[in-house]
Amino acid sequence: MIIGKVCGTVHSTINHPFYDKRKLLVVDKIAPPGIKAEGYLIAVDSVDAGIGETVLVVDEGNGARQIVNDPDAPIRSIIVGIIDDIVIEQID
Amino acid sequence: MIIGKVCGTVHSTINHPFYDKRKLLVVDKIAPPGIKAEGYLIAVDSVDAGIGETVLVVDEGNGARQIVNDPDAPIRSIIVGIIDDIVIEQID
Amino acid sequence: MIIGKVCGTVHSTINHPFYDKRKLLVVDKIAPPGIKAEGYLIAVDSVDAGIGETVLVVDEGNGARQIVNDPDAPIRSIIVGIIDDIVIEQID
Amino acid sequence: MIIGKVCGTVHSTINHPFYDKRKLLVVDKIAPPGIKAEGYLIAVDSVDAGIGETVLVVDEGNGARQIVNDPDAPIRSIIVGIIDDIVIEQID
Amino acid sequence: MIIGKVCGTVHSTINHPFYDKRKLLVVDKIAPPGIKAEGYLIAVDSVDAGIGETVLVVDEGNGARQIVNDPDAPIRSIIVGIIDDIVIEQID
Repeated sequence: MIIGKVCGTVHSTINHPFYDKRKLLVVDKIAPPGIKAEGYLIAVDSVDAGIGETVLVVDEGNGARQIVNDPDAPIRSIIVGIIDDIVIEQID
Repeated sequence: MIIGKVCGTVHSTINHPFYDKRKLLVVDKIAPPGIKAEGYLIAVDSVDAGIGETVLVVDEGNGARQIVNDPDAPIRSIIVGIIDDIVIEQID
Repeated sequence: MIIGKVCGTVHSTINHPFYDKRKLLVVDKIAPPGIKAEGYLIAVDSVDAGIGETVLVVDEGNGARQIVNDPDAPIRSIIVGIIDDIVIEQID
Repeated sequence: MIIGKVCGTVHSTINHPFYDKRKLLVVDKIAPPGIKAEGYLIAVDSVDAGIGETVLVVDEGNGARQIVNDPDAPIRSIIVGIIDDIVIEQID
Repeated sequence: MIIGKVCGTVHSTINHPFYDKRKLLVVDKIAPPGIKAEGYLIAVDSVDAGIGETVLVVDEGNGARQIVNDPDAPIRSIIVGIIDDIVIEQID
């Protein structure tokens, strides 16, 4: 799984019915200091995440379909948690 | 999921029968300002997307097969929505 | 899915029985002008593709197993079409 | 599979119930000398790994769900071993 | 699938029982001349591959589980062939 910061929303009117009432968020991938992360994911929200929040994203179709309780859903990326804090420890 | 801009079409006459009447589009991956995205996908269209449109792409086989209603389809990338707008908010 | 150019062949005598009579091709990933693509895939051929041809590759295990009609095959990448042409349109 | 070093922990209170009592670790991807690795994964622990340990991570949903014995779990990355040593041999 | 050169071994005593008697190899990703490849995989061996050999690796969980004949195995990367030679042809 990866972590990211919610930085925007995506709106679509012509789409697969699954997306009709889903909140689609832009998640900017982030990483702890000294580790590289770049890129983004468009993810369906399942925990009422908001702009600026750090979130845990599962980028895998079968698990995502379980969460939305729809075995036919065309989905791959889903937000499954809001991160309170990330504690990085210094390793000698 | 990722977003991209439809920039071209791919034509093939010798192929797996699944592709015989499918519209195959070249989708240039794009990203919100300040986020990196590069590369492309060749995706099957499911929402009648056209050149220049920004689209939502699911790059996952099982979900894609559900949309085309063919459990045996050799497919991985499918366009599932046309994006009206992407709103990025400034985070302090 | 991605597109690539067939540039070589791979030969193996000690391998999983599935590969005993399969043609294994080296596919150099290519992209339309202005889009970045790098890397390669070793793919099983299913359309009698030859050296120098541009091909459509599906890089996903479940779909690949359907094509070779073997639910137990250890396979992920398969060539499913020979590309006649790729038409990129200028977007203003 | 990949190897990494556990360098931190992630805490979340608002999340999918699956994550309520799971230990979530930050795994910095590492590689043998001369091989490139960058990035990280947030992984569920299954072997009681601790900070500073080198671990084996499987980044695949179906296998991860088997380990946690929950066919509906929204999970993709799981730590399945603590690495004692990695022996790289010089190849002429 | 990808090709790589076996360059090392990984030893682990605290791990998922599946890994108790498996040979875990470090596979340095390689590519034909002019094509870029970087990174590595830790792969389970299924063809008795040794240090210095060039191998074919399938990086996909469902196919890997079929080879080890264990539908619950936490595995993603498996060596399925030893490569005798790779023939790259010059394309004009």
